[in-house]
Amino acid sequence: MFAPLQNDTFLRACLRQPTTHTPLWLMRQAGRYLPEYRATRAKAGSFMGLATNTDYATEVTLQPLARYALDAAILFSDILTVPDAMGLGLSFQLGEGPRFAHPVRDEAAVARLAVPDMARLRYVFDAVTSIRKALNGRVPLIGFSGSPWTLACYMVEGGGSDDYRLVKSMLYARPDLMHRMLSINADAVALYLNTQIQAGAQAVMVFDSWGGVLADGAFQDFSLAYTRRVVSQLQREAGGVRVPVIVFTKGGGPWLAQIADCGADVVGVDWTVNLAAARAQVGARVALQGNLDPNVLFAPPEVVATEARRVLDAFGPPQRTDGGWDGHVFNLGHGISQYTPPEHVAALVEAVHSHSRSLRRMAGE
Amino acid sequence: MFAPLQNDTFLRACLRQPTTHTPLWLMRQAGRYLPEYRATRAKAGSFMGLATNTDYATEVTLQPLARYALDAAILFSDILTVPDAMGLGLSFQLGEGPRFAHPVRDEAAVARLAVPDMARLRYVFDAVTSIRKALNGRVPLIGFSGSPWTLACYMVEGGGSDDYRLVKSMLYARPDLMHRMLSINADAVALYLNTQIQAGAQAVMVFDSWGGVLADGAFQDFSLAYTRRVVSQLQREAGGVRVPVIVFTKGGGPWLAQIADCGADVVGVDWTVNLAAARAQVGARVALQGNLDPNVLFAPPEVVATEARRVLDAFGPPQRTDGGWDGHVFNLGHGISQYTPPEHVAALVEAVHSHSRSLRRMAGE
Repeated sequence: MFAPLQNDTFLRACLRQPTTHTPLWLMRQAGRYLPEYRATRAKAGSFMGLATNTDYATEVTLQPLARYALDAAILFSDILTVPDAMGLGLSFQLGEGPRFAHPVRDEAAVARLAVPDMARLRYVFDAVTSIRKALNGRVPLIGFSGSPWTLACYMVEGGGSDDYRLVKSMLYARPDLMHRMLSINADAVALYLNTQIQAGAQAVMVFDSWGGVLADGAFQDFSLAYTRRVVSQLQREAGGVRVPVIVFTKGGGPWLAQIADCGADVVGVDWTVNLAAARAQVGARVALQGNLDPNVLFAPPEVVATEARRVLDAFGPPQRTDGGWDGHVFNLGHGISQYTPPEHVAALVEAVHSHSRSLRRMAGE
Repeated sequence: MFAPLQNDTFLRACLRQPTTHTPLWLMRQAGRYLPEYRATRAKAGSFMGLATNTDYATEVTLQPLARYALDAAILFSDILTVPDAMGLGLSFQLGEGPRFAHPVRDEAAVARLAVPDMARLRYVFDAVTSIRKALNGRVPLIGFSGSPWTLACYMVEGGGSDDYRLVKSMLYARPDLMHRMLSINADAVALYLNTQIQAGAQAVMVFDSWGGVLADGAFQDFSLAYTRRVVSQLQREAGGVRVPVIVFTKGGGPWLAQIADCGADVVGVDWTVNLAAARAQVGARVALQGNLDPNVLFAPPEVVATEARRVLDAFGPPQRTDGGWDGHVFNLGHGISQYTPPEHVAALVEAVHSHSRSLRRMAGE
């Protein structure tokens, strides 16, 4: 059904198999910093108009690959499609973040929640298949979802928040309601990701964007436990090929060892994490993905290259360990900023590829 | 000049000396969640009107002590008074955060920066002396400032930010300018805190509110190095009594061991930190301050008490170690929310005092 994969560097690194260079992709690589993205979005009229149209979603997913030698594509979509399919009414106001028309704030609203019919998310699976075909085997396609906790944050707050007061009030005052919501979210996310895999996704990523706002203890009980519930339900193979699972908790540095035990193949880390220390701590269990500060991309290209090399040097050259090889997937520690000069991204890609090749030569690989 | 101190529990815990209970105070304890604060602020007309008026600043500083058995008072002021005194024009718009009329965004603006004449901050030192007198020895008075890096964030961004794009662009593109600004900030903050100590502050705290947004490596070079430069210049004794220094980096969990080596007596930690692990890591070098999630205070009083006991249990009972005792100062991991029900704070104070006393009894102290 799909063309054979030509560049499997990303999948190999996820599975801690040897690679000739460190693969890279960028969170939100198909996005507003690209003029061609802005042109397509203008045609689509709105963010959801873009995400729900198979042709447009395919077009913007492939745009960064036309400019840069990225080692993976990621489905163009939003982390909040699942609660939208639950009937919460997702919209994006211009210049603001996502909004839910019907936030979940009381027992009755929680009682109404259920795993949505995947037919309501058909536009996502259609986009996955369309993109996979359009990629024609060039690089692997990553599918994704928000984590159960991150979805709950938006579902309760009704949008972004700077203090998470409403969702944490429910968590501390009515943990029973929160656990019920998170159970439903977890089962919905697992089904959603499995359907993406069946539609053609070659790896999947769980974005726990707001796990890092939780207290120690609460993180384990209300975020990580439900991410684990998702991962345990995932289909890990498609067409005889392993489908790696990436879990990224922004601000998850304090809990890295515990996150590495959640069943994922890859743990994403933000820029506050020292990659050498992280590798020493968890490198034999999972691959690591990250972790350049996206703000580095505002510096001149030579500084971008220096900072990219610094990230690669922090991780160090690949080494054989008990369970395989140390895997590193280069990425930012957060989505790329809409203000990023596109030519700086070219400098980043070039630096990551060339320096990671020279690290392997020095290590005698 | 000042009345003798009646409750030195806070100072003792900071210095890792034995105490009969775990002392507590709350970041932003004099604030909008108290109706009496809102009444005084209405009289003052504006936040800066409140902070610059000695009588009002004294009045609001003492308000939470009238309600709760807190073990320390903290000067009512703002972390941004120093850049205001540098001429940047601080203001507070209603419902928004602080704003600088003259942000520092280029080489010329950085070149104009200098350590301000402390006479421009006289209102702060007058407030310190007035509050210390009004406390009449009841509990110690904490003075404070923003850290050099945190001041720089606001000075460059011109206010709050959700991505720190401008300040990080300067950091990566023009590290020379950033180092110059941070050097001036550090010397200004040290002078400012020393003048507070001379005016009557019995402990001082450096708020590195935005250190946690930096990448590993950048944090050490651009935040911690300058916090250390502040701490190294501080007067550590007044009237024959040790003046403890507290350093609090929000999101500083990944770098706790390094922060504990900056010369401070106490390291503040946010709620993402596991206190048992933190104590094991740094407990013999510094006391720890923290770390309840302020959102816990939205839960019913019995849940507040349970979560407070959980924090105390995580730290564990006091133990004698090589360099003294393990010190714990109970606090929130961030400022108290303006929406907090005041009666929940009463439940917190009661729970911390009673449970920490029973922990000591169980430990046979």
